[in-house]
Amino acid sequence: MNYTEGMLREGALKGKTILVTGGGTGLGKSMGMYFLRLGANLVITSRKLDVLQATAKEMEQETGGKVLAVACDVRDVEQVQKAFDEADALFGKVDAVVNNAAGNFISPTERLSPNAFSTVIDIVLKGTANMTLVAGKNWIAKKTGGSFLNIVTTYAWTGSAYVVPSAAAKAGVLAMTRSLAVEWAKYGIRSNAIAPGPFPTEGAWSRLLPGDLVKKFDPAKKVPVGRVGEHQELANLAAYLVSDFSAYVNGEVITIDGGEWLKGAGEFNNLDLIPQEMWDMLEASRGKKP
Amino acid sequence: MNYTEGMLREGALKGKTILVTGGGTGLGKSMGMYFLRLGANLVITSRKLDVLQATAKEMEQETGGKVLAVACDVRDVEQVQKAFDEADALFGKVDAVVNNAAGNFISPTERLSPNAFSTVIDIVLKGTANMTLVAGKNWIAKKTGGSFLNIVTTYAWTGSAYVVPSAAAKAGVLAMTRSLAVEWAKYGIRSNAIAPGPFPTEGAWSRLLPGDLVKKFDPAKKVPVGRVGEHQELANLAAYLVSDFSAYVNGEVITIDGGEWLKGAGEFNNLDLIPQEMWDMLEASRGKKP
Amino acid sequence: MNYTEGMLREGALKGKTILVTGGGTGLGKSMGMYFLRLGANLVITSRKLDVLQATAKEMEQETGGKVLAVACDVRDVEQVQKAFDEADALFGKVDAVVNNAAGNFISPTERLSPNAFSTVIDIVLKGTANMTLVAGKNWIAKKTGGSFLNIVTTYAWTGSAYVVPSAAAKAGVLAMTRSLAVEWAKYGIRSNAIAPGPFPTEGAWSRLLPGDLVKKFDPAKKVPVGRVGEHQELANLAAYLVSDFSAYVNGEVITIDGGEWLKGAGEFNNLDLIPQEMWDMLEASRGKKP
Amino acid sequence: MNYTEGMLREGALKGKTILVTGGGTGLGKSMGMYFLRLGANLVITSRKLDVLQATAKEMEQETGGKVLAVACDVRDVEQVQKAFDEADALFGKVDAVVNNAAGNFISPTERLSPNAFSTVIDIVLKGTANMTLVAGKNWIAKKTGGSFLNIVTTYAWTGSAYVVPSAAAKAGVLAMTRSLAVEWAKYGIRSNAIAPGPFPTEGAWSRLLPGDLVKKFDPAKKVPVGRVGEHQELANLAAYLVSDFSAYVNGEVITIDGGEWLKGAGEFNNLDLIPQEMWDMLEASRGKKP
Repeated sequence: MNYTEGMLREGALKGKTILVTGGGTGLGKSMGMYFLRLGANLVITSRKLDVLQATAKEMEQETGGKVLAVACDVRDVEQVQKAFDEADALFGKVDAVVNNAAGNFISPTERLSPNAFSTVIDIVLKGTANMTLVAGKNWIAKKTGGSFLNIVTTYAWTGSAYVVPSAAAKAGVLAMTRSLAVEWAKYGIRSNAIAPGPFPTEGAWSRLLPGDLVKKFDPAKKVPVGRVGEHQELANLAAYLVSDFSAYVNGEVITIDGGEWLKGAGEFNNLDLIPQEMWDMLEASRGKKP
Repeated sequence: MNYTEGMLREGALKGKTILVTGGGTGLGKSMGMYFLRLGANLVITSRKLDVLQATAKEMEQETGGKVLAVACDVRDVEQVQKAFDEADALFGKVDAVVNNAAGNFISPTERLSPNAFSTVIDIVLKGTANMTLVAGKNWIAKKTGGSFLNIVTTYAWTGSAYVVPSAAAKAGVLAMTRSLAVEWAKYGIRSNAIAPGPFPTEGAWSRLLPGDLVKKFDPAKKVPVGRVGEHQELANLAAYLVSDFSAYVNGEVITIDGGEWLKGAGEFNNLDLIPQEMWDMLEASRGKKP
Repeated sequence: MNYTEGMLREGALKGKTILVTGGGTGLGKSMGMYFLRLGANLVITSRKLDVLQATAKEMEQETGGKVLAVACDVRDVEQVQKAFDEADALFGKVDAVVNNAAGNFISPTERLSPNAFSTVIDIVLKGTANMTLVAGKNWIAKKTGGSFLNIVTTYAWTGSAYVVPSAAAKAGVLAMTRSLAVEWAKYGIRSNAIAPGPFPTEGAWSRLLPGDLVKKFDPAKKVPVGRVGEHQELANLAAYLVSDFSAYVNGEVITIDGGEWLKGAGEFNNLDLIPQEMWDMLEASRGKKP
Repeated sequence: MNYTEGMLREGALKGKTILVTGGGTGLGKSMGMYFLRLGANLVITSRKLDVLQATAKEMEQETGGKVLAVACDVRDVEQVQKAFDEADALFGKVDAVVNNAAGNFISPTERLSPNAFSTVIDIVLKGTANMTLVAGKNWIAKKTGGSFLNIVTTYAWTGSAYVVPSAAAKAGVLAMTRSLAVEWAKYGIRSNAIAPGPFPTEGAWSRLLPGDLVKKFDPAKKVPVGRVGEHQELANLAAYLVSDFSAYVNGEVITIDGGEWLKGAGEFNNLDLIPQEMWDMLEASRGKKP
């Protein structure tokens, strides 16, 4: 079977309600669409109600599922509370939250104002904390349990130049994921994360790197498997992690990047540039094959 | 749906041939059984031909699939070559190799002879290297691509007392996984690993900790989600990783342990022992809620 | 020689000016004192001017060095700018910044308000970002280079229950450290961090765990080397990292915790509870020593 | 002070005896030389007695210290036992062991024979295990305590193409380091490691990459701080870790590579190639500075 197809059994998310922040576009939309196909009810939030509503309509038409669109700036805890409560009221419960909303600047760090730095922290880290506190307190009070899936990045581990506020904020989300995986397990709440490599979305990538730069820094070139990711591949992994099939996966961050970050990290990985003939010569110069 | 059920779409592994070392018993058997249910052909190896053959028969009867049982000590590269070639000949190709064969002693390290240490390294690390070299060279020569799934442990990352040779050997397998994920990606070969927490098998656990010790050191107590793992949960994850659905997961080690290792690692995780009333008092003593 | 003594050559920091946030008490004070003994000029900041001034006086009397005390709430970028400029003006330059100021709550996460969570992020992560941007821009503009030393925690890696805002914020600082180690190296700026385990300070520990709880959760019990750390041990490591002797250490986080976090993490580390006689029996039951 | 100078206080290792495997040449020799300067007695081992003896003579003349040279193939546990016992007899005790002996091939993995793979495992992993078991058993029996310092590599964490047996073996050593840091702490034995980046030695580098390749793959280009390491920098760190000043550092692996591995790992680190003017344009296109 092909990786552009859905992988889980039919009805794998039937009866579940899943809330996706930043769910109106990009990867959030792709994940939500697949959750619907697997039988889930969906709640999508973002700051742009018109975009959300259009997406919700498209999703319902395509899947026959039920989608609630709620405008919500994750930086504002009251809006977060209201969005969660609305979802809870409509569907009776929310089973899983996908913290996917994010903000980023690509910029040399010395060109950033403290304010710009702060904004990314607020959206990514505080926004995730807000939604996590609201959902967690609800699940603990109602004793229902629940599941968090936080979307981070591969550079949450290693850091990265030129996206430092995002690296810091995503690393914070990652530590929150691991901390609550332990602390809230006693309430039946799991916490996991996905660290995606390059999964281009129309908006994001070209906004970060306009014009020719996108070509010059073609992310596919850095990926050992030789291509960027397909949205369905991320959706497959996300569906697994919000489903009950991953009940024993807790506190884990799964990287899905084709091996991209490792390719840069390993000290001698750039010897890929040595042609076969030169390896032949090297072996000959050592007298024999090792 | 329940985590004791299979999660992938019917026929997800149809047409694939998967070789599992240590496939006659325990987790190797459980994975193999599920691969068969998903439509794969299966090759199982271990040192004990009679056990293998009984398992193969049981598997074929239960699933209607096709199973080849080959005796093979992974420490002996000739046996490894022969086993792989036999599978290759029978099924036309081998699509994925699950390096699952292992050996372990639970013992204070100062009580181990160099020879005991060496034996674990030979089975776990050299055995995996042998199978990896044989399969990799075959896939590169035939330009078919392929996929490795290496079964390691959570303590491959952190180390662990009392199982030091196993910790060292499994860490070596993990580094091999990440290295080849980059180096052999150009040949269409992926490499991934699973780090399972406690998934008891009849044989292994009681052999390691006989008698009352098993109860005293009940692994479930250390797991945030409050239980040990079910074999099907591991089989689900393994099936995902040998399937094409995980085509963009490469060089990754997925931990499936209910959060066990994190629970020990986090500095204040033992504050779980503080009762709610004491938290009330602590808050009161600070004058107000934070 | 004993670990309670200073380790570096006399004059190892001569001519350097080092700024330590949260430098009036605790570990910040201990590090500052040792920097002075090694010949550095010192700048200490915190929100409490009276405490700072008393500390500065004590330090100057004990070491004969020069100390500037500046009140500064790291959350306020203007105060940070002013403090840095004052130090820069007085000493001509600042060679190294130790981001040590922190805030923390020990509390079940579901008892935290979003506001409490936010406060810790603001002090620890945004405060560090503020000082980092101010110092970095200064060093880049003046082409002097410089060095960051960020004090994080062992649970910045693994997360930890009951201190989740701190875990998230410190993980963010860690990612910032690694990111800028790469990005700003071209300007002669190094970035490193220390992850200390238990180094009790009069104030902090008993404030977090009042009364009998301190004894019940005696941190020394969790440390393989059997004791908590001495402030001089941390000061020695910190002095190394702000000195030129560590010029090739960049982007590194050094853990100094006696092995505490590993003890919890390794799956079989709790077998320490098995007495020698039982190991004898286990060996006997296996027929022979491994 | 300069990083090419020794950093520790005079006499910091006085009264200590330190054994360095692979101590006749390269980094092993540089570390040993500095240990002698700090007052230690030194034991150096390797397979080549003539090289060892010449080095020992040179060392004694330069430092006035005492050096024992013992031929020892670390793969042979009897030779290891004999070398350790000889040192123990001559100096009364051995306080620290630096496991530095290593072997490596740079080669595409599919060109390696199982035998070549095995040889690297034997030298690096089994050799270290042999010395560790011999020294550990001695220290436990004599109740003296002791200290291990294992020299690994940055790719022990991340893996690396083209040096896969070395990556696997070094990862194994790293796991052993962390495991024993916990298990043997109760006997007063510490275990730490250093992961060096590029510290060229006359022999090693050009043997791995002969001729023009060395220039083409100039390791300095990959290092954020813009240069390879000086041997004294590694010696400084090693001396700290075998000294009592690091008594609270246990189970730690300190990377000293100028930030090399991080530079490859971070997803956007290659944006260093974007010139300042283009950042100006990017900012302008966004309407204002972030």
